[in-house]
Amino acid sequence: MTGTAEEAAGWWRTAVSETAPDVIRFRGYPVEQLIGRLSLVETAWLLLRGELPTAAQTRLLEAALVASVDHGPQAPSIAAARMAATCGVGLNSAVATGVGLLGDVHGGAGQQCMELLVRVRAAAADGAGLADAVAAELAAVRARRAYVPGFGHRFHTRDPRRDPLVGLLEAAVDDGVVPGDHLAVLLEVERQLSERRGQPVPVNVDGVTAAMYCELGFAPALARGLFVLARSVGVLAHAWEETQAGTRIKGPLPPSFTAPYDGPPLRDLPDDEGDR
Amino acid sequence: MTGTAEEAAGWWRTAVSETAPDVIRFRGYPVEQLIGRLSLVETAWLLLRGELPTAAQTRLLEAALVASVDHGPQAPSIAAARMAATCGVGLNSAVATGVGLLGDVHGGAGQQCMELLVRVRAAAADGAGLADAVAAELAAVRARRAYVPGFGHRFHTRDPRRDPLVGLLEAAVDDGVVPGDHLAVLLEVERQLSERRGQPVPVNVDGVTAAMYCELGFAPALARGLFVLARSVGVLAHAWEETQAGTRIKGPLPPSFTAPYDGPPLRDLPDDEGDR
Amino acid sequence: MTGTAEEAAGWWRTAVSETAPDVIRFRGYPVEQLIGRLSLVETAWLLLRGELPTAAQTRLLEAALVASVDHGPQAPSIAAARMAATCGVGLNSAVATGVGLLGDVHGGAGQQCMELLVRVRAAAADGAGLADAVAAELAAVRARRAYVPGFGHRFHTRDPRRDPLVGLLEAAVDDGVVPGDHLAVLLEVERQLSERRGQPVPVNVDGVTAAMYCELGFAPALARGLFVLARSVGVLAHAWEETQAGTRIKGPLPPSFTAPYDGPPLRDLPDDEGDR
Amino acid sequence: MTGTAEEAAGWWRTAVSETAPDVIRFRGYPVEQLIGRLSLVETAWLLLRGELPTAAQTRLLEAALVASVDHGPQAPSIAAARMAATCGVGLNSAVATGVGLLGDVHGGAGQQCMELLVRVRAAAADGAGLADAVAAELAAVRARRAYVPGFGHRFHTRDPRRDPLVGLLEAAVDDGVVPGDHLAVLLEVERQLSERRGQPVPVNVDGVTAAMYCELGFAPALARGLFVLARSVGVLAHAWEETQAGTRIKGPLPPSFTAPYDGPPLRDLPDDEGDR
Repeated sequence: MTGTAEEAAGWWRTAVSETAPDVIRFRGYPVEQLIGRLSLVETAWLLLRGELPTAAQTRLLEAALVASVDHGPQAPSIAAARMAATCGVGLNSAVATGVGLLGDVHGGAGQQCMELLVRVRAAAADGAGLADAVAAELAAVRARRAYVPGFGHRFHTRDPRRDPLVGLLEAAVDDGVVPGDHLAVLLEVERQLSERRGQPVPVNVDGVTAAMYCELGFAPALARGLFVLARSVGVLAHAWEETQAGTRIKGPLPPSFTAPYDGPPLRDLPDDEGDR
Repeated sequence: MTGTAEEAAGWWRTAVSETAPDVIRFRGYPVEQLIGRLSLVETAWLLLRGELPTAAQTRLLEAALVASVDHGPQAPSIAAARMAATCGVGLNSAVATGVGLLGDVHGGAGQQCMELLVRVRAAAADGAGLADAVAAELAAVRARRAYVPGFGHRFHTRDPRRDPLVGLLEAAVDDGVVPGDHLAVLLEVERQLSERRGQPVPVNVDGVTAAMYCELGFAPALARGLFVLARSVGVLAHAWEETQAGTRIKGPLPPSFTAPYDGPPLRDLPDDEGDR
Repeated sequence: MTGTAEEAAGWWRTAVSETAPDVIRFRGYPVEQLIGRLSLVETAWLLLRGELPTAAQTRLLEAALVASVDHGPQAPSIAAARMAATCGVGLNSAVATGVGLLGDVHGGAGQQCMELLVRVRAAAADGAGLADAVAAELAAVRARRAYVPGFGHRFHTRDPRRDPLVGLLEAAVDDGVVPGDHLAVLLEVERQLSERRGQPVPVNVDGVTAAMYCELGFAPALARGLFVLARSVGVLAHAWEETQAGTRIKGPLPPSFTAPYDGPPLRDLPDDEGDR
Repeated sequence: MTGTAEEAAGWWRTAVSETAPDVIRFRGYPVEQLIGRLSLVETAWLLLRGELPTAAQTRLLEAALVASVDHGPQAPSIAAARMAATCGVGLNSAVATGVGLLGDVHGGAGQQCMELLVRVRAAAADGAGLADAVAAELAAVRARRAYVPGFGHRFHTRDPRRDPLVGLLEAAVDDGVVPGDHLAVLLEVERQLSERRGQPVPVNVDGVTAAMYCELGFAPALARGLFVLARSVGVLAHAWEETQAGTRIKGPLPPSFTAPYDGPPLRDLPDDEGDR
């Protein structure tokens, strides 16, 4: 061991919060001033961004988060949390189980859509123009046979969260709260996708919240983080409902079901290990 | 397999949310009505409790949650999440890691304090009177050499979150928002503990939020759930700060440190396995 | 900060392993001597217990672990891991998801059975005699309307893992490898339970491995730990099978199913927030 | 809901194990035949690969796993699990915490090295020849300023696990147990890296186990899975040691340390929310 005490302490240096005896400050603000005056979402903005949001910014962020809280127990994150709640672990472990499933595929479309919006906006601003920049991006997506993240929905023909979120974002652009250039990219992608497909391909909740987070200045990687905060609410509510029901060791199907087996048929272990 | 399709579907029955093509409703309310009008915390109340909170109830819940978001990287939940963020997992896994550590000891004091408040309030109402009911409870805690959950703090002589939260709760009692009987128990416990110890033993953030959750009608087990929602904000902010720092495989101490070993000294594996 | 560098390093002191430049030792043995000569299970014993097992002890432990590796996708631990594997997280996160569900209810019967065996064995040795000590324990369990941990099975009339494990344990008693007093308690519990119920109530895999771990000298809390090591094998195999299938965002039921909703019917958000 | 009961059951179809009343079979073998005859590692091979390993294959796999069980509490996976064990969660949650940190960076080098070995071997077999195929790969790695996964070590000048594992693998090639072409790539990479650097750049444990898994026919993604199985042993042993020590809420540094704060200095919350 050659390290010093200063090195050890400095290893955990942070600009998020200051904790000393009888002192708790978030980004410089004493916690006793924040309690009763900030909402949880304003506090989240402060901790993540370093500065306070305006009231108008807060309204947009609250809306995006409310839209994302839950989509029912068919989502694996919700189902896994409900199953965990029946296995004899704390509610925190049930929530951790659900949140742990919000990976690149189940929870990553928002980040991927933000990256797309940022990329296309930069290309458009570099002189390509909006329509051509979008067309080039969509051609590139088609070339690698990928999905356009944030559009269409396996379940909804038109995601019911689209219109109210787009409406709020358009009003915020009109009011000068946000610049609107990422929203413009989003709506042009929707227009071109729908035109090409010959039917509406509406942006979904991941796409429209991605535009909102871009407009509010969040980094793409935080799309996942904000989605996690929001979906934790639904995960907790479902885990709690399951807790109250009292089921023990809940599997994915009722006990009257068994999983069909399609592997090798019954066979005996060979006698001689040397022959294996 | 003898189960029916109805049984399989019914296995996942829920009263939290309804999801059907182009329909998302939380506790009966269409999501499109909630977006832009409810805050995340109001939505959390709706999902957990089944009905909407009043504005006054929301203010109390927001305050309790804001008070609990963070307590710095010396908390194992925060440190573990920061370490996770350097290991090549998604931000959701980092948050899940932190939340997973909010167990009975690290995240359970609120629930234990709520159980104490509920028990003492019932005893007081059953005729014991407040002071005697509290005295009996504290005697029982002493008899099993346990802590009184929600009081004192390893780090703060007076938790800076105590006064603003107690102030909000007292004002809410004055305004008739909440009945105040759990708060009365809390303050009597604080008074008797301090009197006996001969110095102030102030209630800490777990204790005062426990009283708040009792007054607002939450079940004790939800103290953990609400703490998880709040602390997720700090966990996310710390994991994100670590992500931006770019450290890889961050251990608990800088690489200049090694963990001292105090087990058996160097020895050779015995040659003959039969002798072991 | 008042701590010293020695304190910081000492905070992570361990007797499990020694790691220094070009040195890795487990409980004093250089890793280069262990590679190729110990099995994984022998190494697990060494790390958990501090000393090497004998060949006969290893055979019993291997048998207990092999018996516990898998019980199919109806187990929530397996199902949750398979769902995780479709959500865009690493295989390690899928395994962590499954292991996280092996809580007090899903993974705790072994520990509870070990505690029972230890308690009854002590009572019998204290002069109660085996039959009376077992009878008293079972009466106590009935009095609190609880299950006897480690007996009976929701699914099997006779757990197919019982007979081979009991056989190995009885042979080990005959050979003087283990004393056999915990096994005697186990079989007497089985006898009395079956007699009272008027039909066989065979010990299940949790019960018989609990006796094996008692006989081998493990602490009850390690029943959970050893079960976790064993079940990780099945969790990994199922997660890997799911990975290869390529399903995305796998819910508990096929997409043709939706979860029935039984909460409040469709309703409108009240206009006036003041009225709520 | 339009799905059928057959669809619901079939959603969980598996070839890993068959579970029916009084029947448990792994890949077709009745569990009662396996108990007492297979080791845990042989059973893992059976579940992952579908067929039994030979004794010689088992020896290699045991050796690779033993080499990977632990590297001390400076590893974030181990430290996080130890912290979890002090927070009031089950041992399973502590293990899940540690395993959850074995992500792309902390647990992914083996998989990345396997992918490199497979790619270079294919190029060499396609006519490039071994030396040129390796040289081209290393040039490509240098061009994108990346690490060569599986070589060098932050801590050891020569990983003490290298020589015994390479020795076992070379002997297995000599005995015809494995073909040896991935090992040849590995050693040629080591030779060229060392030559260019002008000093030894020995393959580390991730690299040599990667070659072993390639030679044994595992898919690259399973490098992570097998590492998880092995490291779970060390994670469990460390969590258990911490449990026995009885520390509560263990942070990364002793309580005498506080994390330095380097964010904005003390400031007051602005009075007028409209101005924010």
